[in-house]
Amino acid sequence: MAHRRVAVLISGRGSNLQALIDAALDPGYPAEIVNVISNEPAAAGLERARKAGLATEIVNHRNFADRAAFDAALDARLRAAGADLVCLAGFMRLLTPGFVAGWRDRMLNIHPSLLPAFPGLDTHARALAAGVRFAGCTVHFVRPTMDDGPIIAQAAVPVLPHDTADSLAARVLEAEHRLYPWALRLAATGRATVVGERVVVDGAKVAAGALINPPPD
Amino acid sequence: MAHRRVAVLISGRGSNLQALIDAALDPGYPAEIVNVISNEPAAAGLERARKAGLATEIVNHRNFADRAAFDAALDARLRAAGADLVCLAGFMRLLTPGFVAGWRDRMLNIHPSLLPAFPGLDTHARALAAGVRFAGCTVHFVRPTMDDGPIIAQAAVPVLPHDTADSLAARVLEAEHRLYPWALRLAATGRATVVGERVVVDGAKVAAGALINPPPD
Repeated sequence: MAHRRVAVLISGRGSNLQALIDAALDPGYPAEIVNVISNEPAAAGLERARKAGLATEIVNHRNFADRAAFDAALDARLRAAGADLVCLAGFMRLLTPGFVAGWRDRMLNIHPSLLPAFPGLDTHARALAAGVRFAGCTVHFVRPTMDDGPIIAQAAVPVLPHDTADSLAARVLEAEHRLYPWALRLAATGRATVVGERVVVDGAKVAAGALINPPPD
Repeated sequence: MAHRRVAVLISGRGSNLQALIDAALDPGYPAEIVNVISNEPAAAGLERARKAGLATEIVNHRNFADRAAFDAALDARLRAAGADLVCLAGFMRLLTPGFVAGWRDRMLNIHPSLLPAFPGLDTHARALAAGVRFAGCTVHFVRPTMDDGPIIAQAAVPVLPHDTADSLAARVLEAEHRLYPWALRLAATGRATVVGERVVVDGAKVAAGALINPPPD
């Protein structure tokens, strides 16, 4: 099977970008990264991409009159790069419904919670405040609502005694770095498809789960 | 440490009651069941209790003018039985804030989801519709809002390919039967206490997690 062409959108340090870069180093991996686009000119992730010899672009949202104009520019760059799939990796801009519709079932996002629990910001602090015993991360196809859309894969990690938002974030991030390449593989090979707003993997609903860390007790 | 006196409230088959009965057969278990009360005269769980030689009572909600009168009768039975702790085990009546306040941090409930996700009824069907990869169960101290309150323990299980609400319910129920006796043990020994609306176990927040089934993939 030919490699799928993937563009990655970032805003910051790009640690999940790095996980995708590392996965794509394997010639057997079914996706290659053809472009890394940041809305933030100073995003550290751009340097990671350059070090890996990848094409990078900056589409600074401050240079556009509104979201629609920004998204149109983004869309043009993705089309020019010949992207088949788009991965959001810490991309901190809300996307317009029109843009999202243009990449329906071809745009992935990773969020550091077991969605539908704790969408949005401050997810780890909110999970700790709720007293949950399990946290995790979710890769899903993007829909116009933030952190919403058909779930491709989730990983669960325990919340441990004395966890802070930072220590929990670090544990979840480690899971993210394993989950995103796996979920992209499922999407890139066509194993994960959307039927009735749920992801079907190999013809079966709900195939992709991963428990990563051992339990605390 | 003396055994804590526990009353169990049921409405139906009482499979979680059975798990508590079995746990309490161990003389080293820190709780003994002093009364099993059902609001449904025909609840199959009453027979389980009788077989185990436990005292049973029926407080039929249909015989009371309103919730407050029903809850007052329930409270009187619990006091008469000398209960230290109350376990809701498939008890299908909403409780009044006054009753709940009287048993604050001494009344436990089990719910078949990873709260705060999917409180209320039809939890398994809703979890499947959301496409989550992990389900589970939660034991928590009861607050006036249904399926809300400080979490004592949670267990996670995978959602598997081709799961139906029934097959998922069966997998979660197995986890419930392990989790409830463990959570009651934590409460009965005083290891689990509530500080700032979060449960502290052995002085550490968030100590009690249990992963029960292996991951699917």
